Amino acid sequence: MTQTTEFKALTGRARSAQQALAQAGPQVRTQALQAAAGVIRARSKTILEVNAEEVETARKAGSDAAFLDRLSLNQDRLNTIADGVAAIATQSDPVGVERRTWTRPNGLQLSEVSVPLGVIGVIFESRPNVTADAAALCVRAANAVILRGGSETTRTSALLAAAMRDGLAEIGLPEDVVQVPPSSDRAWVTAMLETDQGGCDLVVPRGGKSLIAHVRKHTRVPVLSHLDGVCHAYVHEAAARDKAVRLVLDSKMRRTGVCNALETLLIDDACAPDLLPLIADALMGEGCALRGDDAARAIVPGIAAASEADWAEEYLDAILAVRVVAGLDEAVSHIARYGSSHTDMIVTEDAPAAAKFLNAVDSAVVMHNASTGFSDGGEFGFGGEIGIATGRLHARGPVGADQLTTSKYVVRGEGQVRGSWPR
Amino acid sequence: MTQTTEFKALTGRARSAQQALAQAGPQVRTQALQAAAGVIRARSKTILEVNAEEVETARKAGSDAAFLDRLSLNQDRLNTIADGVAAIATQSDPVGVERRTWTRPNGLQLSEVSVPLGVIGVIFESRPNVTADAAALCVRAANAVILRGGSETTRTSALLAAAMRDGLAEIGLPEDVVQVPPSSDRAWVTAMLETDQGGCDLVVPRGGKSLIAHVRKHTRVPVLSHLDGVCHAYVHEAAARDKAVRLVLDSKMRRTGVCNALETLLIDDACAPDLLPLIADALMGEGCALRGDDAARAIVPGIAAASEADWAEEYLDAILAVRVVAGLDEAVSHIARYGSSHTDMIVTEDAPAAAKFLNAVDSAVVMHNASTGFSDGGEFGFGGEIGIATGRLHARGPVGADQLTTSKYVVRGEGQVRGSWPR
Repeated sequence: MTQTTEFKALTGRARSAQQALAQAGPQVRTQALQAAAGVIRARSKTILEVNAEEVETARKAGSDAAFLDRLSLNQDRLNTIADGVAAIATQSDPVGVERRTWTRPNGLQLSEVSVPLGVIGVIFESRPNVTADAAALCVRAANAVILRGGSETTRTSALLAAAMRDGLAEIGLPEDVVQVPPSSDRAWVTAMLETDQGGCDLVVPRGGKSLIAHVRKHTRVPVLSHLDGVCHAYVHEAAARDKAVRLVLDSKMRRTGVCNALETLLIDDACAPDLLPLIADALMGEGCALRGDDAARAIVPGIAAASEADWAEEYLDAILAVRVVAGLDEAVSHIARYGSSHTDMIVTEDAPAAAKFLNAVDSAVVMHNASTGFSDGGEFGFGGEIGIATGRLHARGPVGADQLTTSKYVVRGEGQVRGSWPR
Repeated sequence: MTQTTEFKALTGRARSAQQALAQAGPQVRTQALQAAAGVIRARSKTILEVNAEEVETARKAGSDAAFLDRLSLNQDRLNTIADGVAAIATQSDPVGVERRTWTRPNGLQLSEVSVPLGVIGVIFESRPNVTADAAALCVRAANAVILRGGSETTRTSALLAAAMRDGLAEIGLPEDVVQVPPSSDRAWVTAMLETDQGGCDLVVPRGGKSLIAHVRKHTRVPVLSHLDGVCHAYVHEAAARDKAVRLVLDSKMRRTGVCNALETLLIDDACAPDLLPLIADALMGEGCALRGDDAARAIVPGIAAASEADWAEEYLDAILAVRVVAGLDEAVSHIARYGSSHTDMIVTEDAPAAAKFLNAVDSAVVMHNASTGFSDGGEFGFGGEIGIATGRLHARGPVGADQLTTSKYVVRGEGQVRGSWPR
C-alpha cells in the first residue's frame, strides 16, 4: 500500500529529526518555540487571509455557524495562538528530569528519568489552533509530531505548521520535527492508524466522538484520548448556595461544546427544594434547557422529563440532565454507573463529605468547589494540553505494585469559576 | 457469546471486590497478604502433590525438559513463592500517595494522587508461580486480578489462587479480588481479550513471543507487555577487563531463557583483539555458542558466522551474537536498529562515555557496569514484578508537555552480577 510506505518514510524522517531535537537540549527547544511564535506573528496577515477563504468555502458548502466558528481565526485568536506557543517556550523543559533516584543494598544506583515519547500523530478536526498548540507541546517535550487536520482548513493548518517548521529551522533544528502529510486524502489517516512498526509511537485524536471511536477501532498504535466527557456536579446538602449556583452555571454554560462542560447535575434531596429553583433559574436565564427526574420536576415544573438515555448523554449543548439523589453514596453510584471518568465535582462546605467524594469517584479529575471548566491543561498550569486522557496506562520498565497504579488529579477550590456571571 | 457474558459477570464481581479492597486501606491489604503467605505454606504438601501429578501428565504427553522444569514446583520453589508474597506484604502501599501537589495563582490546590488500575487480566503460560506473584502485586496495589494460566498446571494454579482467596477471606476481604476463569477452555482467553467495556482495564500477557503477539493482535484492552528482550552489552574501549568478562558472562549465562538475558555483544575494535578472546573463553567454558561478524571471527576463530537475522534474534538460549564496532556511536546505532527497547548495558570506566550511552540509548532500562540480570522488579526493589513494559504510555488527565514524556530507568553499577562465577 503506497501511503503506508510513504508514511513510513515520513515517520522515518520524523524519527531522525526527533533524535536531533532531543539531543539539542532545553535551551535550543526554548529558542525554537520563541522563534516559531515570532514567525506566526509575522505572517498573521497571510494566515488570516487564507483562513478567511477557507471559511468562506466551508460556508458555501453549507456548514453551520458553530462549525464555521471553529474553523475561523481572527487577529485575537491568532494572537492567542502565538502567545500560547510563546508561553510553552517559557515552561521548564520536561525531558531528562530525574523523577526519583534510589540505591539498592548491592550498591546499584537507580534513577527514573523522563524521556520523550517519540513520534506523535495528531488527528484533528476543524480547529486550526490545534496545529500550533500540539506542535508546540510536542517540541517542548522533544517529540516529533505529524499533524493531520480537517480538510476544511488544510491551507490554514499548513501555514501554521510551516511557521513552526521555519521557527525550528531558524534555530538550526530539523524542520521535520513538525510534518503534515502531503495531502488531505483519507488514505493518510488510514496509514497513520495502521502503520504499527515504524509508524507513530502514539496517536492523539482531537475532535468529536465519531473521530475518536474511529481511531480507537482502526488502530493498534497506542491512543491517548477521552471518548466522552460526561461530567457531573454533585450539590451536597451542605453546599453554600451562592457557590452552588455559580459553579453549576459556569461549569455548564461558560462553553457548552467542550469536553469539561457539565452534563449532569446531581442534587441532594435535603437541599433540592430550596436550591434547585435558584440553580434552574440561573441556567434557564442563560438559555439552558433542563431534563430531570420526577423529583426534580416536582420542584421546578419548567424541567422537561429525562429518559434513561439522558444520564449517559454528552450533550455538548445548552442542555443539562438533573437528578435528585438521597445523598453522597447515591451520587457516587450514579457517577460510577453513567460517568465517563473524565471530570466530576462536589459542591459542599462539609470537608469529610468532600474527602469521601474525592476518594470514591474514580475519574481522571475530581474537584471540590471548583468549576469543571478548570479541568484543562492550561488551567492546571501545564502550559496547554494536547488532550485529556481518560485511559489508565502509564508504565514502562519493570512493573511492580507501584506501577500497578495510575493517578487522578484532585482539585480543591473555594468556588472558583472560569467565566464572569452574569455575562 | 456465552463466555463473554459470563466473563462480564466475573469482572463485575471482580470490580465490586476491587472497590472493597481499595476502601479497606493499606493495613488490611498487608494483613491479607501475610495471611495468604501463611495459607500457601500450610498447604504446601497438597500443592506439591498436585503439581507432581500435573508435571507427570505433561511428561507423558511428551513435553521437553525445559518446559517441565518451568511447570515444576518443589519445596524450595514453593517457599520462595510464599516468601515473595510475604515480602510484598512488607512493601509500602502504593495507593493514595500524593505524587505531587501545587497551587495555582487563582488559589486552586491541585494534587496528583495514585489510584488502583482496576481489574487486571493476567494470561500466562506454564509457570505456576505467576499465580501467586501476580495476585500478590495486584492486591498490594488494590487491584482485582483474573488469572488465566497454562492448561498444564490448571490445578496447581487453582490451588495457589485458592490460597490467595482464602488469605483475603481470613481478613474479611472479598475473595473475588482474585479469580480464575471456571475452565481452561480457550474461549475464556478470547473473552478476556475481546470484552472491552465491562471487562479488564488491562491485560498482562506473561509468556513466549507467540502468546504476547496473539494477545496484542486480538485485543482492544490496553496491554502491558514486552514482546522481545533483545538485550545488548556494549564493551567500550575503556572497559575494565575483569568487569567486562564477568558482566557479559552473568548477563548471558545466569539464566538464558529470561527476557533480561543478553542476546548481542558489541565490542569496540580498539579492545576486541585483547578482550574478546577472554570473554569468548569464559562464555564457551559455560557452554555458550557464539555467532559473530567477520571481525569477531578473525579474532576468535571458534565463533560461527552470524547472519543478518542474528542481530534481531532473541535466542533465549546459550547463544550470543557478537559484533565488533568502531565506537560508541556505532554501538548506539546498532541498538537503535536491532534492539527491542528492553535493557541495554555499557561496560566502561569512562564516565562521559557512560553518560553518553545512558542518554542516547532509548530503552526502558539502560545500565552502566551492571549485569542485565538486574533488570527485574525484584532487583529494582519493587518487591517483584508483573512484567517489564516496553510500551511508552502512561498519562491520565490533562496531557501537557510533561505528560508527553515517558521514562526510562538508569542503573549505575560497579560490576555487580547476579550469579556466582565460575559456577
